[in-house]
Amino acid sequence: MLRHTVIAGLSAALFPFLPLATPAADDPITASPERMQGRIDALARFGANPEGGVSRVAFSDADVEGRAWLAQEMEALGLEVRVDAAGNIIGRRAGSERGLKPILFGSHIDSVPGGGNYDGQVGVVGALEVVSLLNEHDIVTRHPLEVVSFTDEEGGLTGSRAMIGKLTDAAMDTMSHSGLTVRDGIARVGGDPANIEAAAQKPGDIAAFLELHIEQGAYLHEGDIDIGVVEGIVGIRWWDVTITGVANHAGTTPMNRRQDAMVAAARLALAINQTANDLEGRQVATVGRIQAFPGAPNVIPGEVRMSLEIRDLDAAKMQRVFDLIEIEANGIADESGTSIEFGEIDVASPPAPTDEAMRDVIAGAAGSLGLSHLYMPSGAGHDAQDMAMITPTGMIFVPSVGGISHSPHEFTSAEDMANGASVLFHSILAVDRGNEQTGR
Amino acid sequence: MLRHTVIAGLSAALFPFLPLATPAADDPITASPERMQGRIDALARFGANPEGGVSRVAFSDADVEGRAWLAQEMEALGLEVRVDAAGNIIGRRAGSERGLKPILFGSHIDSVPGGGNYDGQVGVVGALEVVSLLNEHDIVTRHPLEVVSFTDEEGGLTGSRAMIGKLTDAAMDTMSHSGLTVRDGIARVGGDPANIEAAAQKPGDIAAFLELHIEQGAYLHEGDIDIGVVEGIVGIRWWDVTITGVANHAGTTPMNRRQDAMVAAARLALAINQTANDLEGRQVATVGRIQAFPGAPNVIPGEVRMSLEIRDLDAAKMQRVFDLIEIEANGIADESGTSIEFGEIDVASPPAPTDEAMRDVIAGAAGSLGLSHLYMPSGAGHDAQDMAMITPTGMIFVPSVGGISHSPHEFTSAEDMANGASVLFHSILAVDRGNEQTGR
Repeated sequence: MLRHTVIAGLSAALFPFLPLATPAADDPITASPERMQGRIDALARFGANPEGGVSRVAFSDADVEGRAWLAQEMEALGLEVRVDAAGNIIGRRAGSERGLKPILFGSHIDSVPGGGNYDGQVGVVGALEVVSLLNEHDIVTRHPLEVVSFTDEEGGLTGSRAMIGKLTDAAMDTMSHSGLTVRDGIARVGGDPANIEAAAQKPGDIAAFLELHIEQGAYLHEGDIDIGVVEGIVGIRWWDVTITGVANHAGTTPMNRRQDAMVAAARLALAINQTANDLEGRQVATVGRIQAFPGAPNVIPGEVRMSLEIRDLDAAKMQRVFDLIEIEANGIADESGTSIEFGEIDVASPPAPTDEAMRDVIAGAAGSLGLSHLYMPSGAGHDAQDMAMITPTGMIFVPSVGGISHSPHEFTSAEDMANGASVLFHSILAVDRGNEQTGR
Repeated sequence: MLRHTVIAGLSAALFPFLPLATPAADDPITASPERMQGRIDALARFGANPEGGVSRVAFSDADVEGRAWLAQEMEALGLEVRVDAAGNIIGRRAGSERGLKPILFGSHIDSVPGGGNYDGQVGVVGALEVVSLLNEHDIVTRHPLEVVSFTDEEGGLTGSRAMIGKLTDAAMDTMSHSGLTVRDGIARVGGDPANIEAAAQKPGDIAAFLELHIEQGAYLHEGDIDIGVVEGIVGIRWWDVTITGVANHAGTTPMNRRQDAMVAAARLALAINQTANDLEGRQVATVGRIQAFPGAPNVIPGEVRMSLEIRDLDAAKMQRVFDLIEIEANGIADESGTSIEFGEIDVASPPAPTDEAMRDVIAGAAGSLGLSHLYMPSGAGHDAQDMAMITPTGMIFVPSVGGISHSPHEFTSAEDMANGASVLFHSILAVDRGNEQTGR
């Protein structure tokens, strides 16, 4: 359900960073769908899977090959390429004004196992397209520009975590899908895990960060909207829920004398779904895992354990959803003679709102290009949520057909990719100019 | 809820096998609570667990020791002891009339892991008590009497299956809790697994079978009723239920666009419970096992698999419960955009009704002893369900405090055990006499 209003064609005058940098707004520079599709297809060779997508998990041979291709593309565009201590590939284009911090933009080229050709890749190819456009039109920005491809996004935002100084030893010790630990993987792709803090940037080191990405949801595609102006990456909280009843003989215990943990768990799962459904807003709540104990067909479960995940862009709303679920749980426990306990797991990521001025820049760019757009949260995690901790961050979504992602079947048209890259291009130019005006 | 009426003190004249054999009904022979408790305590030494019960799984050292004790007790009572090819211990007391088939009675002395002192043991000790009473009162029955302790009841009715000629090779190949296969276990306790068919009895070989057992449920205890007249052992049917939805990203998929297999499974689990609850009768339906796939907290389950068990004494009623559940499932599938499939597993045991005349004999014996009694199904499985296939079978329940069983905390008072043994004693005498009248 689309509860947010489509805001299209707002006057550029509303946005202080506009009018667009160059040239005249009635003939704006736009990205080339063909060139973008060509680069997507080129990348698709590395780790191609039989279903038409890629399995290019971080640190794998395919990842190493894709990274080599990317570095070559960057160099061919005249960028100065480096790999930081976390293995992030960064291609720099000099600015005209001494002392300004770089505007960073990009995404990632690693995939999930059995992934597709668009998640992450559109953002990196879009960043290359921006440089191609700048080169074609001989535009030199005031700020240095840096195109980034983050390391191992799918494995836990590894590269951006390192860039904000928060990649832990424990995270580096985890096993990646490549069969290497993250630590060994970083070393394999040219990073320096023993010196990981060298990758860290401080607040003020980067002028702004922008990420173009496919939506991985169906709002834009189904609403026939060109551009998503991401309001932020939703926060995530996880709980282990334990429902305790009384295990008993399934043959000799009459229906009305059971304290059946499974029945109480079923009621709770429905209450969780209903609570998230009934509230106004885009919060989601999910039971993804469940197990009954002892787990035999002929024993009434004495215990059921299940997961609860809540996501929203607003931390207070997440708490409210949880509070309402807890009230439901107390009622179910009372009525069913069970007890229900929620143990929160320490994997919470707080909501990461994007920078308000950056949202307006993106919306303004879209508007000036005649593209419809929608303010929306990102339900999925992105490197942008890390970068938002240290720099004004903006994020641009383009439609995913059917909302499919993490699948060989994910698809975004060349036209939609180009729309996203055009918005990215004009947003970067606006930020480049606007920063002078706002003294950023 | 007790839906069956307590029928106590019905006139003995209603029962063709009565009046009781001997002596006068106004001073009936009754079992000794002290002697029974003594034998229960003696048996409790073999495999005693720290919680006060026994862990005397079939074929274990404790089982071997308990069996040796039992054989000695039988011999001390003058029984002629043999072990059949299935390891069943049988103690025979000669009858007065040539050519009559034996009346068989008993239960089992093996336990579940972490079991108690009453399940099975009350029936064997009750059978010994019957012989003690016959000896004390110098009663010789017309039929030979055989006290039986079946092998490995808890592992799958092993001994009685063999006695009805249905113990399969596959069942003998299964691993028992003792760490031995059933086959090797049978050999260990003196059976002859290579010649297992020697244990088989045909219809007509046994005049009748009676089993005294604790209820393993709470009807009798809570209703303050002395004796359960078992109408039969309920049938059991199992299904694997597969609910198929669409796995999707728990962050990017709005609540109202989910085809969440978990939510559909929760609705189905409640519908199963409700269906069995709402119908008149004592049918039970249980979901004891559940798993969601892929089973990650951040993925909407695309598939949930769960078990369904239905039990009732009436096969048609079991089918009706299933039919109603299937109707509910179809509605849930339609509304939730999922599909729900029921795959029946071939472990079904059909309802095993006891012999109607035997029920009346037992009820009559209880009535003449001034004991309250209740006609009721057995929700748990028993050797009696096998024996009912080849001989008129009766089963006597005595109260389990709180309905607890398969636990060190199961408890039946000495008085209740003695009531059961008294009913067993008078029922055997009635059958012994009645058989002449009915030509059985």
